[in-house]
Amino acid sequence: MKTTNILEKGPFSQKAFGKLLVHDSPYFRILNFNFEPDQELPVHNHDVEGQLSILVLEGEGEFLGGDGATLPARTGDMLIADIAEPHGIRAATRMRVVVTIAPTL
Amino acid sequence: MKTTNILEKGPFSQKAFGKLLVHDSPYFRILNFNFEPDQELPVHNHDVEGQLSILVLEGEGEFLGGDGATLPARTGDMLIADIAEPHGIRAATRMRVVVTIAPTL
Repeated sequence: MKTTNILEKGPFSQKAFGKLLVHDSPYFRILNFNFEPDQELPVHNHDVEGQLSILVLEGEGEFLGGDGATLPARTGDMLIADIAEPHGIRAATRMRVVVTIAPTL
Repeated sequence: MKTTNILEKGPFSQKAFGKLLVHDSPYFRILNFNFEPDQELPVHNHDVEGQLSILVLEGEGEFLGGDGATLPARTGDMLIADIAEPHGIRAATRMRVVVTIAPTL
């Protein structure tokens, strides 16, 4: 049993969005990404089985999908996608998100 | 690709803590639990492989472990535990948490 405070530990950066690896095991990988306005995690996908969640802790922007699709991303929104499905995020304001990927093998 | 707003959809209840099943698949189960002050998820464990995370979205309380162990649970804190390890939560203020369990089979 261990805890991490994501709001205290997660960095922001002007160069590229800030990243914190919160946890990594065969069961799931948990990451915190922090975005300055206009920073983005470009649309990408991996040809592996599994799913991911992206939870918006603070801020506002858009979830990005394939073929230019977007969905609003506001505080409290959680996106679920297959890892094999195109996914990304673009920030409009400062944004903190938590990404969980399962499994990781 | 689908989104759910946990802050809008997650219920509170005076009788017992409020529960929202956000997502369920073989890869992970994601739940939102909302607590009124003094409500708790009692310490429990399941004899299966896998891990869980508990993220505090809002509020303050304690994570509960085996043998009466406690850890502070504040906004932004994420607990990681094995599913087989005793775990629980007790709320001091109104609290919203997100629980992710992987795998679910």
